[in-house]
Amino acid sequence: MDWLDWQKSVLLTDLYQLTMLQGYFERGMEDEAVFEFFVRRQPEQRNFLLAAGLEQVLDYLESLAFSATDIACLDDTGLFSAAFLDYLRGLRFRGSVEAMPEGTVFFADEPVLRVVGPLPQAQLVESRLINLLHFQTLVASKAARCALAAPDKLLVDFGMRRSHGAEAAVFAARASYLAGFGGTATVVAKPLYGIPIFGTMAHSFIESHDSEPAAFESFARAHHGAVVLLIDTYDTERGARRVVELAARLADEGIRIHSVRLDSGDPAVLSKSVRRILDQGGCEDIGIFASGGLDEYELSRLHRLGAPIDGYGIGTSVDVSADAPSLDCVYKIQEYAGRARRKRSTGKATWPGRKQVFRLYDDDGRLSRDILTIQGDSQPGRPLLEPVMRDGRRLAPSPSLDQVRATAAAGLEQLPASLRSLEAAAGFTVEVAGALKELAASVDKAFR
Amino acid sequence: MDWLDWQKSVLLTDLYQLTMLQGYFERGMEDEAVFEFFVRRQPEQRNFLLAAGLEQVLDYLESLAFSATDIACLDDTGLFSAAFLDYLRGLRFRGSVEAMPEGTVFFADEPVLRVVGPLPQAQLVESRLINLLHFQTLVASKAARCALAAPDKLLVDFGMRRSHGAEAAVFAARASYLAGFGGTATVVAKPLYGIPIFGTMAHSFIESHDSEPAAFESFARAHHGAVVLLIDTYDTERGARRVVELAARLADEGIRIHSVRLDSGDPAVLSKSVRRILDQGGCEDIGIFASGGLDEYELSRLHRLGAPIDGYGIGTSVDVSADAPSLDCVYKIQEYAGRARRKRSTGKATWPGRKQVFRLYDDDGRLSRDILTIQGDSQPGRPLLEPVMRDGRRLAPSPSLDQVRATAAAGLEQLPASLRSLEAAAGFTVEVAGALKELAASVDKAFR
Repeated sequence: MDWLDWQKSVLLTDLYQLTMLQGYFERGMEDEAVFEFFVRRQPEQRNFLLAAGLEQVLDYLESLAFSATDIACLDDTGLFSAAFLDYLRGLRFRGSVEAMPEGTVFFADEPVLRVVGPLPQAQLVESRLINLLHFQTLVASKAARCALAAPDKLLVDFGMRRSHGAEAAVFAARASYLAGFGGTATVVAKPLYGIPIFGTMAHSFIESHDSEPAAFESFARAHHGAVVLLIDTYDTERGARRVVELAARLADEGIRIHSVRLDSGDPAVLSKSVRRILDQGGCEDIGIFASGGLDEYELSRLHRLGAPIDGYGIGTSVDVSADAPSLDCVYKIQEYAGRARRKRSTGKATWPGRKQVFRLYDDDGRLSRDILTIQGDSQPGRPLLEPVMRDGRRLAPSPSLDQVRATAAAGLEQLPASLRSLEAAAGFTVEVAGALKELAASVDKAFR
Repeated sequence: MDWLDWQKSVLLTDLYQLTMLQGYFERGMEDEAVFEFFVRRQPEQRNFLLAAGLEQVLDYLESLAFSATDIACLDDTGLFSAAFLDYLRGLRFRGSVEAMPEGTVFFADEPVLRVVGPLPQAQLVESRLINLLHFQTLVASKAARCALAAPDKLLVDFGMRRSHGAEAAVFAARASYLAGFGGTATVVAKPLYGIPIFGTMAHSFIESHDSEPAAFESFARAHHGAVVLLIDTYDTERGARRVVELAARLADEGIRIHSVRLDSGDPAVLSKSVRRILDQGGCEDIGIFASGGLDEYELSRLHRLGAPIDGYGIGTSVDVSADAPSLDCVYKIQEYAGRARRKRSTGKATWPGRKQVFRLYDDDGRLSRDILTIQGDSQPGRPLLEPVMRDGRRLAPSPSLDQVRATAAAGLEQLPASLRSLEAAAGFTVEVAGALKELAASVDKAFR
C-alpha cells in the first residue's frame, strides 16, 4: 500500500459516514440535504462564543477526494462493495455553504454554518467539519475572555507543548490570535498564518550556565531581537537586581534589555517589587512580562490589583480551554428532499429547517437581541449567515486573518457589559421566531 | 518560499528553543546535557498515569532536520545570524534516550523519559517532545479508568469530532486502544496503527428516510459488516419493537441484526426495557450498545446497576480528558557538562540529576512501592527506565501496539484496589531515596 497522507485523507472521518454513504448509494438517495452546525448548550463559564475555523473547513471541502490509497484502505476492511468504492473514486464536494464570518460572536442554538448539497456529500463531511470548527471556536471563545480581562496588554500564546497534538498547537495559535492575542511562541504559525512570534528563554538556559549573571549576559549578547530575561530560576528579586547591573554594563555597547519575565510565585506581589528594583536602578524602560499557569481569572485579578505587568504568556488554559475543554456542538440534518427534519431524542431535540439569525443592537451600538428563524422569514436586524461557497468553490477570497481579528474585536466591543463579564450572565436568550416554532410542530406531525 | 510541510517541520516548536540555541551556538556550549520528562503533579482525579507517545517521540528524533524551507522561514524573521542558520542546516539528533516502555503505569515526579546529548540537540526537542508525550499519556490515563470501570465490555473511541484537531483524533484512537479500548470509529486509525474500527449509523440516516422502519431496513440490507441500528431518534422503545419486526422478516434472507444502539436518555433504564422487548421478541442474540456523553463514572454506575449493555462508544470525555484536559508535565534539564542542576523557582523545584525508578510488588503481585533515586544507586525492585535510543537511532524495533496494550493491561492488573478505584486514593507516594536527597542538597549549594 502506498504512503497514506493521513492528515489530508478523507479517511480522517468516522466509519459510520462511509457505511451510511453505502446505504445511500445502494438506494440511490442523492437528493438535496441541508445540514447545520451549531452548539446545543454553551458551557456555564461562557457568556458568548466566537466562531472560528471556517477557513479550514472551506479548504477541506474544496480539496475533498478519495486517493487511490484511501480506496485501497477501505477495500481492505471488507465492508464495501466494488461498485461503491468506484463511486467514491469520483466523489467530490459540490455543495453550497452559508456561514457566519470567522470572528462572529454567537450563542447556543444559532447555526454557525449550513451545508446544502446531495445527501452523501453533505453527510460525509460531518466528522472533520465538526473537528475543525469545534476546536478553533473553543479556543477563540476562551482567548476572547482573556483579551477582555487584560485590556491593552500584549497576550502571547505559549501553549504548544500541552496542546493536544500538532494541529491543535497551530490552530490554537490562529484562534487565539484572531480573538485578540498579539502573537504566539509557536514558530510555524508565522510562515503558516503570518502570526507574530515571540520568544524568551527557558530555565534550562539559566541552569546550563555556571551562574545566572553569566546566562543573562550570554543571552543578551547572542540575541538579535527584543531581549527578555527570565529572572525566577533561583530568586526573582535577586534576578531583577542582576538585570539592573547588566543593563548598565551593556548600555555602553548599545545592547538593550527589553523586559524581564516572571514565571512563578504571585505575579501581583513580584511584579511590584521587581518594578521597584528596576525603577530604582534606572531601568524604567525595562518591561515586565509574566507567564506560568495564567488564565482569564488570574489576568482579571492582576488587572484589579494594578499589577505593573506589560504582557502575558498564556499557555495551557487557553490551548486546551481548560475550564471547558469541549463544546456540545453538532452538525445535524435539517431538511432532505425538500422536507424539513429533526430528531426528538430525549433531551436532544433540535430546531428543524434552514435557519437564519438576525442581530439587533441598542442605541449605544451594543448587541441587544438575536432572533432565530427560518430562512426567508422577514425580521428586523442584521442577518449573520452569508453565502461563502457554491458548487464546491469559494464565492470570494477569504478575509485575511487580520480582517477576522478586526471582526472579532468589533464583536467584543459591541457586547453588553453583562456578557463581557467573566461571571455567568443571566438574561441573554436567543428568541425563537413564530415561523420556526410552526415549522417544528409540523415536522413532528410528519415524522414518527 | 516552497511549500511548508508543517506537521513534520522542526519549526513546530517554541521560538525560545531557537533563540536559546543561537546563544549556545555563539558561546560554543555543546557539552553533554541531560533532560528528563516527568509530571510534576497528578490531577486530583488520577490515581495513576499510563505512559504513551514514546513511539512518536522516537520517530520525531530520528527524522529531525531543518529543511531548506524551514531555514528560509527562520531567515525571514531577522532574528538569526547566517552562521547560525548554516549550523542548523547540519543539525541532527544524535543523542540517547532512556524511557519507560509505553503502557507503563507511573506517578508524579518519576522520569518517564530521559534525553542525553549535546545541549543544543537535547534542548531543541523540548516543545514537540512534550507535545507528543503529554497528549497520549493524558488520553491513555483517562481511557484506562474507563477500562477499569467497565470490565469485559467492548469500549470504542467515538471522539474524533471533538478531538482537538486531526492529530489529536488519531493519537486519541491510539492511546485509548493501548489503554484497553477495543477499537475506534476513526477510519484512518486502521491503516495507520492497525486498530480495529467500528461504525454504526447516525440520526441523520434515520431522518433522511421517510420512516424509521424504512431506514432500518435500508441500512440492514446495504451493510456488509455487523449491523447496528440506532433506535433513539424518535422513541427508543418503539424503535426496539421495530427492530424485532425487522429481524424476523430479514432472518429468512439470512440478514442478521447484530445490535441496537442507545444514544440518549438514561441507559440504565432504557437498556433494561429494550433488553426485555428484544428478548420477548425472540431476539436474545441482538446486543445493546450505548453511547452519548459517557465517562468512567457513568460506566461505573451502569456496571453497579447491572445494565444489560454489551459495549460502549465513548467520545469527548476521553478524547479531551474532560475532567483533567492537561497534565502538569515538564522536560527539565537535570545535568550539564557533568554537573547536576535544578531550578528552585517558588513551588516548582524539581529533583536534579539522572534518575531511575524501582518498582516493588507485594506477595500477591500488586504494586506496593516505587523508589525514585539517582541512576547507579542500588535499590530493590524492577528498574522502569530502559535504553531505547543511542546516537539518534532506535536500539531495537519498537514493540507492536498490541504488545504495548498487553503491557498496559498487566500494569492495570497489578494495581492495588485503592489505585484502581475511580475515587482519589490516599497513601501511594513515591519514595525518594537518600542518594537523591543528598544530590539535591549539594546542587543547591553550588548554583545560586
